Amino acid sequence: MHDIEKVLNSINPVNRDHAAGIEAHLDNLTKPPKSLGRLEELAFQYCLATDTTKPVLGKKRICCFAGDHGVADDGVSAFPKSVTPQMVLNMLAGGAAINVLTRHADIELLVIDMGVDDPLAGAEGLIRKKIANGTASIARGPAMTIEQARQAIQTGMELAKQASDDNVSLLGTGEMGIANTTPAAALFAAYLDCSPSTVTGRGTGIDDSRLAHKCQVIETALAVNASNLRDPVATLAALGGFEIAGICGLILGAAAQRIPVVVDGFISTAGALAACRITPAVKDYLFFSHLSREQGHRIVMEKLQIRPVLDLDMRLGEGTGAALAIPVIEAAIKIYNEMATFDSAQVSKN
Amino acid sequence: MHDIEKVLNSINPVNRDHAAGIEAHLDNLTKPPKSLGRLEELAFQYCLATDTTKPVLGKKRICCFAGDHGVADDGVSAFPKSVTPQMVLNMLAGGAAINVLTRHADIELLVIDMGVDDPLAGAEGLIRKKIANGTASIARGPAMTIEQARQAIQTGMELAKQASDDNVSLLGTGEMGIANTTPAAALFAAYLDCSPSTVTGRGTGIDDSRLAHKCQVIETALAVNASNLRDPVATLAALGGFEIAGICGLILGAAAQRIPVVVDGFISTAGALAACRITPAVKDYLFFSHLSREQGHRIVMEKLQIRPVLDLDMRLGEGTGAALAIPVIEAAIKIYNEMATFDSAQVSKN
Repeated sequence: MHDIEKVLNSINPVNRDHAAGIEAHLDNLTKPPKSLGRLEELAFQYCLATDTTKPVLGKKRICCFAGDHGVADDGVSAFPKSVTPQMVLNMLAGGAAINVLTRHADIELLVIDMGVDDPLAGAEGLIRKKIANGTASIARGPAMTIEQARQAIQTGMELAKQASDDNVSLLGTGEMGIANTTPAAALFAAYLDCSPSTVTGRGTGIDDSRLAHKCQVIETALAVNASNLRDPVATLAALGGFEIAGICGLILGAAAQRIPVVVDGFISTAGALAACRITPAVKDYLFFSHLSREQGHRIVMEKLQIRPVLDLDMRLGEGTGAALAIPVIEAAIKIYNEMATFDSAQVSKN
Repeated sequence: MHDIEKVLNSINPVNRDHAAGIEAHLDNLTKPPKSLGRLEELAFQYCLATDTTKPVLGKKRICCFAGDHGVADDGVSAFPKSVTPQMVLNMLAGGAAINVLTRHADIELLVIDMGVDDPLAGAEGLIRKKIANGTASIARGPAMTIEQARQAIQTGMELAKQASDDNVSLLGTGEMGIANTTPAAALFAAYLDCSPSTVTGRGTGIDDSRLAHKCQVIETALAVNASNLRDPVATLAALGGFEIAGICGLILGAAAQRIPVVVDGFISTAGALAACRITPAVKDYLFFSHLSREQGHRIVMEKLQIRPVLDLDMRLGEGTGAALAIPVIEAAIKIYNEMATFDSAQVSKN
């Protein structure tokens, strides 16, 4: 087991000593200054996060964490809970959207059982880290114990360490868990101190009356857990999910290893926000891949002053947004590394 | 030589007979309906444009058209005209941004001399289609003759035919030509009947006083060419450029071959708008890759009711926006082709 506190203590804010050198190099490439816009910003951030003026691209990997939620039984989702293990098997068989997109972009995909309410017996390729058969319903008390939350965070940290050992230089997050927009929205409401209705959306596609019910369930969850929200980890334990805590741990561990992480959409942002609340310096290591169509993500992004890389009206999760943004970030690093300079190409500067 | 009119007559609006079948297939993939947002829209449009429910992905190719502009001598650009041939050589040597991005996405790049004011002697790999050593200044009369405009359009059409022969299934546009935001803005003002100041920006990075001068030059160009703007081709000849007319021809020819085209940014949109004015049905074959940071592109996109795929604050041209959007469109087609269905993966629908 990792010692969580030891990992947290080894997370440092990015070193800005190289900032001027990185910018000077970008301005010396054969293009008008800043004309590649966000690609230049992404390259700049990647260099800062990896503490270099000569960035190296190794492997890319997405960790897709799966878990079930007690609150699924409270009628908050359009799909039954049995879809979580079915989709895990679909991912292991290569038929889910995340499989298509990771194959397309040459990204390795790991699927981790953090707490699916199914033994998933015989599922080949699954990384088995099950903490329990789903969380307890947040509408009746804490989703998990503090010890379980720490176990999930440690699992994420161990995956970050493994990524470093495997020469992964860009990590992405993903998740699968029926009903998990409910704990994600509850976490946003708690961490950002805002009304559940502003950050609660239709998830996989619920109608108006079920949406109203979902908001009410989250109000109840915040009320019954009011005394449990005393610090970021306790809040994560009370309102989160095993997959969300795993994402949080992956991000914290990756920042400690200086591996930038591409955060997927709504659910992954909840894990990222938990990580930022635990150790604010991790934000410098995060790329936010896309603006989810799930209501509330825009508001969360605005509150955090983040502009995601893509805006494709997606709301699927799994890591699909991360899988599409990773090649853009890769392109940015290649621009930095491979373009000619004005001198080398004998192009007049002006 | 192609017969332009014959090509135009063979452009048909997309056949919507397959629309319901395409949508039904997308809704049967293992994800909540529409949850992949714009990826699903892109796959839908690609299927319609290629008239199939079973899309095939062949090669991808970007045609980067280069040309010089007489109006460059009127002080509208931050860079000297000599940069056009220098950048063409940079592209042929593999050092420009478009080279990095096309290599990254496995897209073939063709660089076509449509009218660079330099012999480019010995430039290996260049496709030589030079019509003249640059256009005449639009501030003093038409940029080119009608015959020259037709020659440029025909060149683009021939490149589309070649793409079809080469099994290219997705084309992209790009351009290089110092000062070419000026003719592009003039074309937008003429085709969209709006004030030059709303569609004129800083190009490679001019200051306020030069921007005011650039707007004035475009006002003058519209005034001196007022009697020349009698039809879409005549307008293109009067205010355009050889590379812009080449893009227009490529788009028209590609639509005739049912090859979808990914339009780059500001300049390419001017060529695309010319093509749409010549034959409105081509719009169904176009993907607009990104929202350029060049002032005016947003307004043009709004007027045309187009939402580009990406918004990365880029304003470089060359085809760089197309090169980043092509992999997203490819991803969409792979989603359509490769994802499991609810039945095949035994996932419960709800």
